[in-house]
Amino acid sequence: MPYHSNPLDLAFHALSDPTRRAVVSRLADGEAAVSDLAEPFNMALPSFTQHLKVLEDCGLIASEKRGRSRWCRLVPERFDEAAVWMEAERRRWAGRLDRLEVYLDTKEEEDGRYQESD
Amino acid sequence: MPYHSNPLDLAFHALSDPTRRAVVSRLADGEAAVSDLAEPFNMALPSFTQHLKVLEDCGLIASEKRGRSRWCRLVPERFDEAAVWMEAERRRWAGRLDRLEVYLDTKEEEDGRYQESD
Repeated sequence: MPYHSNPLDLAFHALSDPTRRAVVSRLADGEAAVSDLAEPFNMALPSFTQHLKVLEDCGLIASEKRGRSRWCRLVPERFDEAAVWMEAERRRWAGRLDRLEVYLDTKEEEDGRYQESD
Repeated sequence: MPYHSNPLDLAFHALSDPTRRAVVSRLADGEAAVSDLAEPFNMALPSFTQHLKVLEDCGLIASEKRGRSRWCRLVPERFDEAAVWMEAERRRWAGRLDRLEVYLDTKEEEDGRYQESD
């Protein structure tokens, strides 16, 4: 991603990969050690930790070392930011369709009246 | 994006750019001609149409030629697919926090009882 990318750019970029989305899904259920997170994926650990780095760099997850393991958890604020943007667009779109429906209903009613008075 | 990317990968990738998100926002208000869509952006038309191509290739928008203009419209199904995924994760996360709260409340209550009987 270009160096000037904003947080929302980075969050959506991070979510554009199925492995990274699967990690987010898993962490939505609670924190997990990197080794447990990696377990379901048929992937070399360095490739997997690269995915974790993308998620951590954009602020979707955080991690900390505990003894010999590194643990990851979801950071909901960044995720919410992206989800809120999507929901706002959906509502705007839905609002537009509602207004269109009201307009078409009114038009139909008016057309009906004109036909009755013909 | 790699050739095997799935629709959700492509949708999130398309949304990882501020110009493309602005186009989606504008089209949520209704269809628009490419020239009107491009107008607010300080960008050469070929670069702008490249952004439209990314949005169209992943199915977030559709376009058609009318006379001498090309018109674009949002395709809500693909957008909804991405929004639904995000909302499901958020709910899962919220559900986990609710369960944690219930657990902590119960624990606090129990701890209180133990202290009373001390």
